[in-house]
Amino acid sequence: MIKFSAKDIASLIEGEVSGDANYRISKIAKIEEADDESICFIANPKYLQFANTAKAGILLVNKNVEINNPNIHAIIKVNDAYQAFAVLLKAYEKLTQQKTKSGIEQYSVIDASSSYGDNFYLGSFSYVSKNVKIGNNVKIYPNCFIGENTTIGDNTILHAGVKVYQGCIIGSDCIIHSGAVIGSDGFGFIPTTNGFDKIPQTGIVKIGNNVEIGANTTIDRATMGATLIDNGVKLDNLIQIAHNVEIGENTAIAAQSGFSGSTKVGKRVIIGGQVGTVGHIKISDDVKINAKSAVAKNIDPGRAISGVPAVDIKDHFRQMAAIKQLPELIKKVALLEKELAKYQSAIK
Amino acid sequence: MIKFSAKDIASLIEGEVSGDANYRISKIAKIEEADDESICFIANPKYLQFANTAKAGILLVNKNVEINNPNIHAIIKVNDAYQAFAVLLKAYEKLTQQKTKSGIEQYSVIDASSSYGDNFYLGSFSYVSKNVKIGNNVKIYPNCFIGENTTIGDNTILHAGVKVYQGCIIGSDCIIHSGAVIGSDGFGFIPTTNGFDKIPQTGIVKIGNNVEIGANTTIDRATMGATLIDNGVKLDNLIQIAHNVEIGENTAIAAQSGFSGSTKVGKRVIIGGQVGTVGHIKISDDVKINAKSAVAKNIDPGRAISGVPAVDIKDHFRQMAAIKQLPELIKKVALLEKELAKYQSAIK
Amino acid sequence: MIKFSAKDIASLIEGEVSGDANYRISKIAKIEEADDESICFIANPKYLQFANTAKAGILLVNKNVEINNPNIHAIIKVNDAYQAFAVLLKAYEKLTQQKTKSGIEQYSVIDASSSYGDNFYLGSFSYVSKNVKIGNNVKIYPNCFIGENTTIGDNTILHAGVKVYQGCIIGSDCIIHSGAVIGSDGFGFIPTTNGFDKIPQTGIVKIGNNVEIGANTTIDRATMGATLIDNGVKLDNLIQIAHNVEIGENTAIAAQSGFSGSTKVGKRVIIGGQVGTVGHIKISDDVKINAKSAVAKNIDPGRAISGVPAVDIKDHFRQMAAIKQLPELIKKVALLEKELAKYQSAIK
Repeated sequence: MIKFSAKDIASLIEGEVSGDANYRISKIAKIEEADDESICFIANPKYLQFANTAKAGILLVNKNVEINNPNIHAIIKVNDAYQAFAVLLKAYEKLTQQKTKSGIEQYSVIDASSSYGDNFYLGSFSYVSKNVKIGNNVKIYPNCFIGENTTIGDNTILHAGVKVYQGCIIGSDCIIHSGAVIGSDGFGFIPTTNGFDKIPQTGIVKIGNNVEIGANTTIDRATMGATLIDNGVKLDNLIQIAHNVEIGENTAIAAQSGFSGSTKVGKRVIIGGQVGTVGHIKISDDVKINAKSAVAKNIDPGRAISGVPAVDIKDHFRQMAAIKQLPELIKKVALLEKELAKYQSAIK
Repeated sequence: MIKFSAKDIASLIEGEVSGDANYRISKIAKIEEADDESICFIANPKYLQFANTAKAGILLVNKNVEINNPNIHAIIKVNDAYQAFAVLLKAYEKLTQQKTKSGIEQYSVIDASSSYGDNFYLGSFSYVSKNVKIGNNVKIYPNCFIGENTTIGDNTILHAGVKVYQGCIIGSDCIIHSGAVIGSDGFGFIPTTNGFDKIPQTGIVKIGNNVEIGANTTIDRATMGATLIDNGVKLDNLIQIAHNVEIGENTAIAAQSGFSGSTKVGKRVIIGGQVGTVGHIKISDDVKINAKSAVAKNIDPGRAISGVPAVDIKDHFRQMAAIKQLPELIKKVALLEKELAKYQSAIK
Repeated sequence: MIKFSAKDIASLIEGEVSGDANYRISKIAKIEEADDESICFIANPKYLQFANTAKAGILLVNKNVEINNPNIHAIIKVNDAYQAFAVLLKAYEKLTQQKTKSGIEQYSVIDASSSYGDNFYLGSFSYVSKNVKIGNNVKIYPNCFIGENTTIGDNTILHAGVKVYQGCIIGSDCIIHSGAVIGSDGFGFIPTTNGFDKIPQTGIVKIGNNVEIGANTTIDRATMGATLIDNGVKLDNLIQIAHNVEIGENTAIAAQSGFSGSTKVGKRVIIGGQVGTVGHIKISDDVKINAKSAVAKNIDPGRAISGVPAVDIKDHFRQMAAIKQLPELIKKVALLEKELAKYQSAIK
């Protein structure tokens, strides 16, 4: 087991050590679970309660935090404990990660018309259809399906069981998690006198670079043109992206949210979980949408919204507070009516 | 590349051409993305803004729309631009679609006791268990699983990665998208003194004809009897159908909605996204349910409902409007109380 | 076909027969679908309407229910008809269930470094990576993926298409349904000046014994440490469990609910469908959460809550009732203002 000293760690993350700078730990832990062998951190103020009771080898905190805990052997202070911890996790991951897979495993299928770059991994039970173009360092884990005429950029990873329908384009440096479905038919039907007529979904899904897509998330192909997931977008699990939706650069969306057809979401938008939007609206850049909201109209840049339907987040909280007072208010109004009636008859 | 003239297209969709009837295009596009080579359409009034600025070969619109745009070479007017466009998309799809697959690919498994009709496609890594009956022209893409004693009707397509548990019945002309799960156990447990006892789920899922099921949608088998998805039902992605639910003919349900056990949904019901229902209720024919609603009781035929819990849609919007006024109302009542108190003492 | 007499069935479930104790049935049915050949039951009072009109061989009811229906050949009365029926279903399942699978099917992959116990079933197109430890009587259906260094306990069943990422621990006697994803990366990113930096998710998912996980449910691995699903937990379909969440013993969660990072849910908690929680909160033992609620703060033991945000369920219903009166209340206040103004000027 490799051990690291407080001094070495501090130098990696530009921190300042107090306590025993030569103290050495061998693992990373959450503060509630830390022991003498661990480094742990506090960034979220909710966890400050553990600061003076925890038992840890090394504790990483923000500069402004005072720690007075004899059970901790060394403290490292940094400007941003969260970010510093991520740097540590990356270093740790590099040291411990599995050897990268490469090669084409038995019981896989790749059509002769398809091409792939260096250092390709194709897991067993994965199927690459005709005319697929795959870049360098692409890793396709077992049980994936890649439809005809698709493109996958360099360094992209498809975890086990990803399904990509025909014609879709996936950029480079993407991570797509198990069970995600890219390019299924958009939900488009024309009502007829005896049911529905399917509208052919002739478009594609186009995913930019450096996109992460969560487990079992579904992204439908466009009716025509493309459903777009732009560079740097992060999608959590079980999200629904309907046909012709566009998600702008560096937007992040939490789990179980859903976007109806042709809605456009701007850049750097932050969207909580279980949000829903109607179709054909525009959510502008830098908007923040609270979890469980329903967005029913265009939203101007930079606004923070919440509620069903979503309104300005301050108005939403004002309304929520008011609803709590409502049962009392009803009583007050009844009393006012009674009082007024009394004075009315008195005056008469 | 094949090109089509405005005249030819108009005759296909019973439209009337103005402008250059011999003008020829080669592709279909959204109006925002159209160029000289494209035909595009406007049906949704939201897109009328593009009518006079777009640059397109041919524009398809409703009869009552006036277009005055020199960049468009020909205009085709029809009674229903949306429906006409769907006809065009179907014609286009027929011209461009992949050659239909058939044959049993390598690395697939089909039990000797199972049967299949003409023109069958079984993709690699798909598994057909014992005693399965498969009709004509059925297409099973890679990575599907078909449990014992299931039946699949003519012309039905299972996209890559569909899972069907034992005993289920799927009708003809169905399309089931990737990752959909048909026949998983219903969520049934009996509370005991130390946890839960599983109630065996001995029933099946029965799916009618001409049903479409979205990606990663889940339909649980019945405790006994059958969970029913009737003819012509359209289910979007990530929908949850619990055990013993029944969905009536030609009902359409948007993404991420969920239906609790034994609830019955009528015919021609239209249900928005992220709707939830309690169990053991009856939603009658021709009901419309707004997105994100929660349905907690029986609903009479033809009603339009919304909200949590869902009420008549007009009442819902009235309540929503009232909530916006609520913070102001609280202030008004406080003022009334103060004023009344003043006059009370004045009168005394 | 085997037939069972009312007498035999009654003795199995400690019931009391009236009518023809020798009457024999051959199948189990819902009361609405029962015929002379069936046994059916009524436990939910909603179904009492069928008691006197149904046509059934044998009817199973609670002791306090009076049945007066000449079409039913025998009635069995028990203390708890629901529980008794579950016993019957289990007996029926044992008689009718498929022969348990065992053996390693063709076109499957199991790394030489991995081990498994007696009576192991590995379906075709399933992939067991390096250093996996699998107990006795484990059944892995087709198209599953088991990552490196995972552990699976005795008697656990993975239905077709389950994906388990590296390092996860699954206990014994678990049932995991198709499409469930265990151990995908938690949704953790650090905002940077030009997008997001991924925080490596170096932890695992640890699942206890006797856990059931629904179809297409996703459980993310911890950033560090473990996402925990404790003994006896029952998760329905399409649920999202984020990184470092902990779900306590014998908690049951209905479909499409989602739990944000590091939230801890206690023991014996009952959670409805489409519920969401923020991260880093504690929901205590024996709490009940109504469907579609949003939980935004710590919840004390034993409370029943509802709403967005969730409050005491009684307060919630009071608020909901008050909202219905709100449009009327606004009118009342306007009238009061007018009346008061009138008297003000009269007094002057």
